[in-house]
Amino acid sequence: MTVPSSLQQLIQALKVLPGVGPKSASRMAYHLLQRDQAGAANLAHAIEYAMATLSHCRHCNTFTEAEVCDICADDERSRRQLCVVEMPTDLLMIEQTLAYQGLYFVLMGRLSPLDGIGTKDIAFERLLERASDGEVEEVILATNFTVEGEATAHYLAETLRARGLKVSRIARGLPVGGELEHVDPSTLAQALVERRGL
Amino acid sequence: MTVPSSLQQLIQALKVLPGVGPKSASRMAYHLLQRDQAGAANLAHAIEYAMATLSHCRHCNTFTEAEVCDICADDERSRRQLCVVEMPTDLLMIEQTLAYQGLYFVLMGRLSPLDGIGTKDIAFERLLERASDGEVEEVILATNFTVEGEATAHYLAETLRARGLKVSRIARGLPVGGELEHVDPSTLAQALVERRGL
Repeated sequence: MTVPSSLQQLIQALKVLPGVGPKSASRMAYHLLQRDQAGAANLAHAIEYAMATLSHCRHCNTFTEAEVCDICADDERSRRQLCVVEMPTDLLMIEQTLAYQGLYFVLMGRLSPLDGIGTKDIAFERLLERASDGEVEEVILATNFTVEGEATAHYLAETLRARGLKVSRIARGLPVGGELEHVDPSTLAQALVERRGL
Repeated sequence: MTVPSSLQQLIQALKVLPGVGPKSASRMAYHLLQRDQAGAANLAHAIEYAMATLSHCRHCNTFTEAEVCDICADDERSRRQLCVVEMPTDLLMIEQTLAYQGLYFVLMGRLSPLDGIGTKDIAFERLLERASDGEVEEVILATNFTVEGEATAHYLAETLRARGLKVSRIARGLPVGGELEHVDPSTLAQALVERRGL
């Protein structure tokens, strides 16, 4: 007695999802087949539809259904600042702050040598090209403050500065409303190091 | 600026998977589109193929590509014992023990009134019919030892006994190689209550 091959294929196929191992894949497969056939059909269709319609914005590399995304197409936004983020979700988070009026560039990843992700696997060359358009004056690095995000920012800063661009990094420090008592020591240490003159 | 609608649809569609909330769904969508388009196409295809080819075994209700599954079609197996499990994976676990030569019935779920899952949502009526075929002498309840699995076993036992069938439940107790020192108190208590005469 074995699992039917089409079921086995489905379980195998579900394992491409990040964070899904053999056990969850099997649970997901049974759930789709047993409890939610409509959801399953919809999922298959949504994957195919997204792959068919989505491409990368010619300017900022985020996902878009048009050639150029809404932000890049917006004439109101400043062309002199370019904010570099890892993923489209990061871009959305910054947009929600309403504190930034420049343009973006989405790397679609971060440098992570341990996972075999180098400059060829993120949109590194395209960023260099984009930042050298003559209009961009400042590149704001807004990669995550993880080990990989920091390494990416460091590497980008070196390369972009070598091309004569002004490079900045978003600030680390205590969160708004944060209390010293409840913040972790390394954040507090950074907040001290990066203190601003008043 | 919003997320492109086909991407939004994909994120929404991924949320039908058990244990996947908005954050993981978004991470999965970006992973599929950015890092594994081949895996994504394969996943869409596997879902459609599994839904098209898989159906329930006419006898035991497990997933099969044929009308009757391999186990039910096997003439060597005893038709006098019927082992009731919650899911096809449970059936496979029991098969791996090589300790059972009878047939199975897969409920495809468990009673769980809190989640709105009643006798109509599992293959309860089909089990009653299957167990009353005149050949089955003993029904072995092998639902999980969770609250829901126990409730299901209890309910099935009452109903099946009322139809004159012999009903048994797989044993609870210490695992093989288990030490009293390391077992949880409720398992140990059950092992005492369900002690066997030697």
